[in-house]
Amino acid sequence: MIKPRTPPGVMELLPREQIAFQRMLDTIRRNYERFGFLPVETPVFELSEVLLTKSGGETERQVYFAQSTGALEKEGEGLPELALRFDLTVPLARYVAEHEHELAFPFRRYQIQRVYRGERAQRGRFREFYQCDIDVIGKDALSIRYDAEVLAVIHAVFSELGIGDFTVQLNNRKLMRGYFEGLGIADGEQQALVLREVDKLDKRGADYVRETLTGEGFGLSDEVVGKILDFVAVRSSGYEDALAKLDALGQGSDTLNQGITELREVLQLVHALGVPDSDWCLNFSIARGLDYYTGTVYETQLDGYPQIGSICSGGRYEDLASHYTKSKLPGVGISIGVTRLFWQLREAGLISGIEESSVQALVALMDESRMADSLDIARRLRAGGINTEVQMEPKKIGKQFQYASRAGIRFVVLCGDDEAARGVVAVKDLQREQQFEVRRDELASALKVELEQARALAGRR
Amino acid sequence: MIKPRTPPGVMELLPREQIAFQRMLDTIRRNYERFGFLPVETPVFELSEVLLTKSGGETERQVYFAQSTGALEKEGEGLPELALRFDLTVPLARYVAEHEHELAFPFRRYQIQRVYRGERAQRGRFREFYQCDIDVIGKDALSIRYDAEVLAVIHAVFSELGIGDFTVQLNNRKLMRGYFEGLGIADGEQQALVLREVDKLDKRGADYVRETLTGEGFGLSDEVVGKILDFVAVRSSGYEDALAKLDALGQGSDTLNQGITELREVLQLVHALGVPDSDWCLNFSIARGLDYYTGTVYETQLDGYPQIGSICSGGRYEDLASHYTKSKLPGVGISIGVTRLFWQLREAGLISGIEESSVQALVALMDESRMADSLDIARRLRAGGINTEVQMEPKKIGKQFQYASRAGIRFVVLCGDDEAARGVVAVKDLQREQQFEVRRDELASALKVELEQARALAGRR
Repeated sequence: MIKPRTPPGVMELLPREQIAFQRMLDTIRRNYERFGFLPVETPVFELSEVLLTKSGGETERQVYFAQSTGALEKEGEGLPELALRFDLTVPLARYVAEHEHELAFPFRRYQIQRVYRGERAQRGRFREFYQCDIDVIGKDALSIRYDAEVLAVIHAVFSELGIGDFTVQLNNRKLMRGYFEGLGIADGEQQALVLREVDKLDKRGADYVRETLTGEGFGLSDEVVGKILDFVAVRSSGYEDALAKLDALGQGSDTLNQGITELREVLQLVHALGVPDSDWCLNFSIARGLDYYTGTVYETQLDGYPQIGSICSGGRYEDLASHYTKSKLPGVGISIGVTRLFWQLREAGLISGIEESSVQALVALMDESRMADSLDIARRLRAGGINTEVQMEPKKIGKQFQYASRAGIRFVVLCGDDEAARGVVAVKDLQREQQFEVRRDELASALKVELEQARALAGRR
Repeated sequence: MIKPRTPPGVMELLPREQIAFQRMLDTIRRNYERFGFLPVETPVFELSEVLLTKSGGETERQVYFAQSTGALEKEGEGLPELALRFDLTVPLARYVAEHEHELAFPFRRYQIQRVYRGERAQRGRFREFYQCDIDVIGKDALSIRYDAEVLAVIHAVFSELGIGDFTVQLNNRKLMRGYFEGLGIADGEQQALVLREVDKLDKRGADYVRETLTGEGFGLSDEVVGKILDFVAVRSSGYEDALAKLDALGQGSDTLNQGITELREVLQLVHALGVPDSDWCLNFSIARGLDYYTGTVYETQLDGYPQIGSICSGGRYEDLASHYTKSKLPGVGISIGVTRLFWQLREAGLISGIEESSVQALVALMDESRMADSLDIARRLRAGGINTEVQMEPKKIGKQFQYASRAGIRFVVLCGDDEAARGVVAVKDLQREQQFEVRRDELASALKVELEQARALAGRR
């Protein structure tokens, strides 16, 4: 006998939780599709030499390799042939480069798949987790307008997920770079080092950061450091204020001016797209991956749970697939790490674990002789679009109700000899604690109406 | 520059095909849920010692192992720690045993995930492919009634997939075993050997099989071989005929009688579940995995494409998880290998590649000045449930129509200065080749009506 257990670092759910998780995935996908993004799936493994081009970083040390028994026996010089994807961006780059001549540009794809990283085993760290990505890829050029649309997608997703108030925070790497240049910090690497210190503001406080930046290593003047700290503290509040915050930066280097122009256009279109002012803001401290993003950058925070950190991030990049093709493929995209998000929401008590089941009705078995009739009722319910389970084995009726209640099944349908003779069924609505009778041929549509009412109510919350 | 390419043995699709594939997955899932099955997902890798308990078979030689860079460096005595799942049955066994005390039995789960096998590289053989499984697992016992329900699920799935007429073929291992015992072939292994020869009927013909079975190795009498060939040739046609075919077997050993009783009950309930007579039949030659299935067995054939083989198979087994728990867990289940099915349908020309896009409307850009207005129209469409793409960059209007047409987007929405002034938009329906005007605030509902009409028509086909 072998002890059944999962490897460390994976999130495996019981059915009730899996239903809640699946609803999150479905909501994300529905909104991605609503904005016209097309589905792509790539294989879980790529050829190692194709996947590991960027190489060298920490990511590569976390890569999983896959080998069949045959390959293991042969043993190897060098890396195994196959490696598991560690994100969805490198597979996207490979996909777009490989199918470049069969795709229409701008190419708008969504991809919802699991990725693999050999993280150190630790609570809340996953070796297997879902990423839900969208990207718009242009050929040679890509309009800044897509940067606004991507923000609208983030907004639509988190509005419908209904996990609380959130704020999409927006910045632009050119704006940031231009501002630093204006302060005499022109070197990209130097900027990165300064920003790393600035990132410690929350944890160490302003005094610590000021001391470090004016200290020996950096040697910046009090004035410059003051300006940096003022700059990264900027948050806008509403559309007009955001435009004013941009105006207040005045004129500067070409880079700064371009950043301001880009951000201003993005804000105007975000406005036109109907994203409410209260749900986004400028945040001049956001930098994201410094070696990758080149323009707009996004982070998203749950207002009530800032400690969770960004739940959806991304930005604009200059060239997606320079390792695979000579074509210039600029893009803008975001990623939702939904496994970690779900885990965090559960930890915060925001996933109740008493979600309504995906099963909507249980046809109870009153008596052995009524089995065939139960199946007929179930057939009608299913044909009418109601997810239905049938009690197949005799069991006390109280136990059947108990089961439905524990499982989160809303309706229990009863049909004894009396109901059958009258052509009706009795329905117990466990959610509203009501019982009613309905004609058998109207059962499915009656339940559908009830379910749609509940959905409409939930939507209004 | 590295040549972008996928490893051999995977199926990667272009967006148009991916949409068609995704629709198949969605249809399968919808029907699994309609019958009250609950979602389960398991990690792609399991601990090797947990996954490879049954060991020894060909499957194990095809297993992929996963190792992080760290593990590779340490090198190993013995097997790597992690192995990729090669089916969904072993992970289900591990899952049910691990969570036994948190699950309600009978436990009804569906699982739609990819599995991995180091197959020899060959056209139509995949190293990564989707399986779509349902299983009902009982504790200690499980009513035969579920065997009927599972057949109804198969029927519902393939009816809605709309890939042509199909027949679910049904048999029972006890019936088969009992019949063979009655002929003096009592040993299970001997039965398996005989069946393996019988399986060659299609390819080698009856004479060849008869010669082999009466020949030295088997030494069966002409009479016995005649009875075997008659038995495995039995196919029923309709409900009454199926019951008659069972009656014709008469009385025999307990095993035979039990098989007949089980099949008869399954047929009665299949009938009660409203599965049309024309869509299933008895086929006494079906055996499936001889060491695994113990009762009902299913195979499913596309009537017009028998050469594709079984597109959905499964059956009843005695004990799911004997390697992991002392509890007896009998079950019944089926699996659809949808990657291979999709590939075969495409090879047979049954997937046109001109599927309607998941994007339903394109808001055309008539003039730069109308950009913000386009976004407002798109916002209304999306809020009304229409998957909408916006033309973000200026382009000749003819090119915009060409793009929509090639992409399979049905509606192009146009709003010039004139339309804007009158509060209307023009809609071009590329499918019905019609153009109409509609008030802007009625646009989404108008398109929704059109799309639902099309869906209803498609359903009626």
